[in-house]
This record gives sequence, structure tokens and C-alpha cells, in this order.
Amino acid sequence: MSLIVQKFGGTSVGDIERIEQVADKVARFRADGHQVVVVVSAMSGETNRLIALANEVQERPEPREMDVLVSTGEQVTTALLAMALIKRGVKARSYNGSQVRILTDDAHTKARIRDIDDANMRRDLDDGCVVVVAGFQGVDERGNITTLGRGGSDTTAVALAAALKADECQIYTDVDGVYTTDPRVVDGARRLEKITFEEMLEMASMGSKVLQIRAVEFAGKYNVPLRVLHSFQDGPGTLITTEEESDMETPTIAGIAFNRDEAKLTIQGVPDTPGVAYKILGPIGEANIEVDVIVQNVSHDNTADFTFTVSRNDLPQAEDILRKTATALGAREVSSDNKIAKVSVVGVGMRSHAGVASQMFEALADVGINILMITTSEIKISVIIEEKFLELAVRSLHSSFGLENDPEELARN
Amino acid sequence: MSLIVQKFGGTSVGDIERIEQVADKVARFRADGHQVVVVVSAMSGETNRLIALANEVQERPEPREMDVLVSTGEQVTTALLAMALIKRGVKARSYNGSQVRILTDDAHTKARIRDIDDANMRRDLDDGCVVVVAGFQGVDERGNITTLGRGGSDTTAVALAAALKADECQIYTDVDGVYTTDPRVVDGARRLEKITFEEMLEMASMGSKVLQIRAVEFAGKYNVPLRVLHSFQDGPGTLITTEEESDMETPTIAGIAFNRDEAKLTIQGVPDTPGVAYKILGPIGEANIEVDVIVQNVSHDNTADFTFTVSRNDLPQAEDILRKTATALGAREVSSDNKIAKVSVVGVGMRSHAGVASQMFEALADVGINILMITTSEIKISVIIEEKFLELAVRSLHSSFGLENDPEELARN
Repeated sequence: MSLIVQKFGGTSVGDIERIEQVADKVARFRADGHQVVVVVSAMSGETNRLIALANEVQERPEPREMDVLVSTGEQVTTALLAMALIKRGVKARSYNGSQVRILTDDAHTKARIRDIDDANMRRDLDDGCVVVVAGFQGVDERGNITTLGRGGSDTTAVALAAALKADECQIYTDVDGVYTTDPRVVDGARRLEKITFEEMLEMASMGSKVLQIRAVEFAGKYNVPLRVLHSFQDGPGTLITTEEESDMETPTIAGIAFNRDEAKLTIQGVPDTPGVAYKILGPIGEANIEVDVIVQNVSHDNTADFTFTVSRNDLPQAEDILRKTATALGAREVSSDNKIAKVSVVGVGMRSHAGVASQMFEALADVGINILMITTSEIKISVIIEEKFLELAVRSLHSSFGLENDPEELARN
Repeated sequence: MSLIVQKFGGTSVGDIERIEQVADKVARFRADGHQVVVVVSAMSGETNRLIALANEVQERPEPREMDVLVSTGEQVTTALLAMALIKRGVKARSYNGSQVRILTDDAHTKARIRDIDDANMRRDLDDGCVVVVAGFQGVDERGNITTLGRGGSDTTAVALAAALKADECQIYTDVDGVYTTDPRVVDGARRLEKITFEEMLEMASMGSKVLQIRAVEFAGKYNVPLRVLHSFQDGPGTLITTEEESDMETPTIAGIAFNRDEAKLTIQGVPDTPGVAYKILGPIGEANIEVDVIVQNVSHDNTADFTFTVSRNDLPQAEDILRKTATALGAREVSSDNKIAKVSVVGVGMRSHAGVASQMFEALADVGINILMITTSEIKISVIIEEKFLELAVRSLHSSFGLENDPEELARN
């Protein structure tokens, strides 16, 4: 018997029929003797309906009241799922964030979990109950309802799994696992049986469609085994776990990640003095624009060239800010390009395997793709290329690293 | 400056436009310097939508989960109204039943309030906040969400007013007050400026359309001045208060109440022994059928005739039960009639004014109406008559007691 936390998102509980299917699945786990805590999101569409009501009142409503409003969505689902379980003869009790109690800070609409009281859940689990918990929400020290922000239900599930020391946290979604790359781009993309937390984080550009990065970080920090599974298809999914848990030889590369939503800004001829990077990126950060890749070239003539990427949506605003900075700093020129994309090769194996970078650059050169920027981390190498070459680059790399039918894959799993 | 509790029902907060109107009204009270606690129901239709979802899962869902589900309806309204107030520059905070904390017993779907913690509300009121509270709900000692049953929001408002020792509890509704009788039956029906709790209870057949009887009882018990007002029309409404608060001469009669939803059952020739009333009415009560008027005639030949009325819906079931009882008791005959109605003359003044009964009977005799049953209480005389005479009876009595243009009315107000 193991203790499992299962999380079902909005689409998986989108109507009563689907809630009944989820109840069937949960009931089977109970019948197999497992203790189960289920975390649910609001029925799909419900959160947007509530936000639309609020926006009829005001464009930017008071965050405290926004949390009171939208937190009802998950509460409705918990009650309906508990009813569906009870109908099947499965003991079940619903809990909202305040009832659990999931204590958060008071940052309404984007609160962070501080502590979880597991007493009520433990008592119910010991009593043979399935515990159904509203995702995405908590309560601050003064008893105000808080929410964790969009996708926060994944975080709730991982946090509960950590608090209960669950054997596994299962995230049910509309894909059957994490792939070596996007199957829409590469026919031969394969589902991974296992991936490390670090790789999952670096695969963010694809991973974020599967589960919230914040939940992966949380799971890694508390060493909660995470499994991504399809809500309505049977299958083992992908297990996200620590490297150390596997004693098998790890292949070099886990997958190829990519992101189209990139635009690059270059400021040239900046006086190369200490603090110049802060002078350039400080105003961008203050405008709440997230910067992704940052590259500073070696200086010449005591000036430096500085390039960074932002989301395409943010480009016009970022460019305005950068032009002001350029004037202030006496820089030579500002230029921008939004027809770019980022492609990354990800794998913990590259820590111990030399030559991954050169293999990557070679594969791209072989198909005539020019590299605009390069940035590396311990387990990822990313290049910025022209957007029109994106699919070609992903397919070449997927093939070059033998991800279609990697003979090492069996060892990996 | 006074402290006012205001309650707005589902129709009054049925959409965002109406919530904005309610916010305007509340904001005016704040601007006039009053402290305001607002109790709201779910937006009209919302509770039924939630119940329909539950019934898709199961016909009789677990009561605990039902409460978790439907209590979200009021919570949504509290957030939207708080937002609308904040938009107007009025400080406001929403509370659900658990946050207040409104402690109830654990009788899910029909819980009764045990205690109210006024600390959070007091702090906010002292801070210049409008406190917006979800009606209809509370929390039991173990933190489970409970609901007070349909119409429970009136009870919440009165209970909060009692706990806060509010100067007035205002129930906003779709009528502009309590009338001497139903204006649809008598053109000259007048809105009462004042009515006592006892009269209001006795006017139940009309009063129940205006506010929940349970709330009136609660208000009477804790001596909370209750005012019934129209949500969207200005006007003083009707104040429901204790007799003692008025030092003015009270007129004899407050109004004429009536009820069409009556059916009568008669059991004749019952052996007149102690406990016979219980033997007849016990089985009826056990079947959850409410009995209204009960009349037992003087016995003759050691047998009694026993007549009582029930709701028309309950007549077939009640008659079945009564026939079985009649067989068991060896009674002579059971008969029934569902073409009857009840008309009542209500007024605390009849305590000290003789002759009200004879004036009532005379008025009915003058228009040729035969009285089938009579029952009296300290402040009410009710007669059962044939249904076809109902309107005629009400108009005759309204006129006979001078309710259209009672010269004493000015003194009463």
C-alpha cells in the first residue's frame, strides 16, 4: 500500500461525465489498496467565467476579493468529485485550502505556500477516506483566502505530497508524458519513461505545457517523485525524479526543447564599465519584462556589445526602454529582431560527456543553419537561430542525438 | 451614527448591474456615516445551477458535500459586491461563514446557528470598512462548512445584527413592506409603517413571502429591530419591532392574512379517551406532514370529532394515514375537503379590545359566508371557509376593520 497524491486539471474535470471518469480512476486506486489524496482544479471555463464577472465590475479588482471569488471554482469541483466517489461506495471528504489548512503568505493572486497542516488529511486517510482537496488556494495567517496563481493546482499537489511524504505525486493531464521533443515537429519524438527534475526544468519551453515549472522546482526541492500521466488513457506516463534514484547509465541527451516566443535586442558600443549590465537590464526588469538569454561580447575599444532576448509581446516596450538607456549611456546603436527562435539540447549526461556542444553545432552546420547567439548551462546548450530554421534545427538535432530510437534508451529506463 | 445590518436576496444581486445598484445603496449609507454589515445571497439561479450539477452526480448527494458545493454561491456574491464597493472608494471586505466565524451545529443543509464571533467584523467596522458576509452558511466545530437551509440568509442577517447589537436589521426584498393584506386581493391594502414581531409571525401566510419566519422569531427573541424594504425603490418600508417600543395607542387590527393552501381532514366518532389526539396526529407528524389548524369538538356519546388542516399537496398521504388510524381506533368516519381557505384577523390590539371576534363573524355573515372552523390565539382569529368565498371575505374584513384609511393609522405610526 502506498500513499499517492493525484492531481486532475480543469479539462479532466470539465463536466460531470469527466468527473465520473476521474472518480472511476480514483476508486480503482483505492480498490488496489492505496491511500489517495486528490487535488482538483476548477471545471474548465469556470475560472474564466468568474474572472469575467469580476471584470464586469472592474478591470483590476481588489486582489483579496479576486481570490475569494475564483477560489470557489475549485471548491465546487471538490464537492462534486467527493459526491461521485461516495456514490461508488468510496468514503470521501472534500477540503478547501483553509480547511486543510494550506498556510500561504498574503500575496493575493500569487501567494506562496508556507506550511501545510496534515492532521485532517491524515485522520481521514487513516479512516479509509479519499481526501479531495481544492487546488490553487490557501489561507493566510489572518484567515484570508489566497490563491497561488494560474496553474497553482500542480503546486498544491506537490506541496501536499511533500507534507504527507507521499510515495508519488501523479499529475494527470491531456498528454501521456514528457517527450524528447514536440511530436508535432518531429514524427519520431518519443515519450520518456524518466527524466530528472533538472532536465524537466530546462525543457521548460515544452514542459510548461505539461506541468507548472514551479511545481517541478518544488518537487525537486522536496524530492517528491512526480509522474505525468494522461487523464483518460492508461499508460505509465513519465516519471520525473532525482538523478540519484537511478543507478543506470544515463544517456547524454534527454530531449530537444525550443521556443518561438523570442525576440532579441542588441545595444552596441556601450562603455565597458562595471555595472553597465545592471544599467541596461535594471530598467527592463523594473518594467516587469522577463529577460531570457543574455550574452555580452568581449569588449573592444573599451566598449561592449550586449544582446538579450525577451518575449515577443514585450519587444516594443523593451525597445523603448533600451533606446532611452542607450541615450543615457552614450551607446552607439540599438537594434532588434523578432524573427528568431531558441533551440536547446537538454540532458544531465552532458555534465560528464564532452563534445555535446560541438555535436550540436555540427548538426546545425550540416543543414546550413547560422547560429546567432549561444548560451550554455551545466545541462543545457541553447542557440538562437532565425525562426524559419526552427523545425529543421529540431529535426536535425533529434536525429543527430539519436533520440528516435536511442539504443541507450532501454538502459535509461 | 448607527450600525446597520442589510440583507440583499438573490434577485437583488441577480446580475452585475444589480450588484452595482446595491453597492450604490450601501455606499450612500456609509456616506451618511453609518457602519454597515451587508449579508448577501447567491445570485439568483446560481444555487439551482449548483444543485443541478450535484443531481447530475446523484439524486441525494452527501449533505456535507452539498453544503461545500452550494455555499460557493454566496461567496461569489460577497466578492463581487466588495469589489463594487471598493470601486466606489468604499473600503470593504468579504467574509464567508467560516471566516466570520458563524458557528453552527453539524446538521448539514439545515444547520442552526450556535454562536457568532464578532471580532473580525468589529475590527473592520472600526476601520471604516463595510463588512460583506455570505448569508445562509456557517461552519461546525470541526471546521466543516454548513448551510442553514433555504432562506437562511435572512437568519444570518438577524443573527449578525443580534451579535453586533446593531441598531437595525434591514431586509431588502422585492416588495416595499408588509401590507394590511395582499394588494392583489384588496385594492385599498395599505403598507404598514410598523408591525410587532408577534403580528408578523401570525401574518405568516403573507409574511413568509416577505421574510423567513425563522428570521422573525430570531429577531423577536433577541429584540433586533427588523425593517423590510424594497431593494430598488426608496421608501421607509415596514419596521417589525416589539410592541413595547411604541408608546402610541395601538389600533385593534394590523391586517388580514389568508392562505389558500389548505385542505381539511375530519375523523368522526373517535373514542374520547386521553391520548387520542396524539394517536391521530402522531403518525401524521412522523410522515413529516405539517398540521396547521386543529379543532376538537366537545365530545358526545363518549366520542369526539376531530378536524385538522394540512397543505393541499400533503392531503392524499395524510388521508391514507388517517384512514389507517381510524380503523385502528374504531372511528366512525373519515372525510376530507381541499376546496377550503383560511382567513385570519391579526393584531396585538385584540388583547385589550373585546369584540373583535364578533365583529369578524358579523362581517362574514353580512356577505353570506359560512364559517367551517374557528381557531383563535391571543392576537389572531382564524376561520376556515369555502375557498370560493376567500376574496370576498378578505375584502369584507379589510373594510369592516377600517384598514383602508384607518384614522388610527396616523397614531400607530
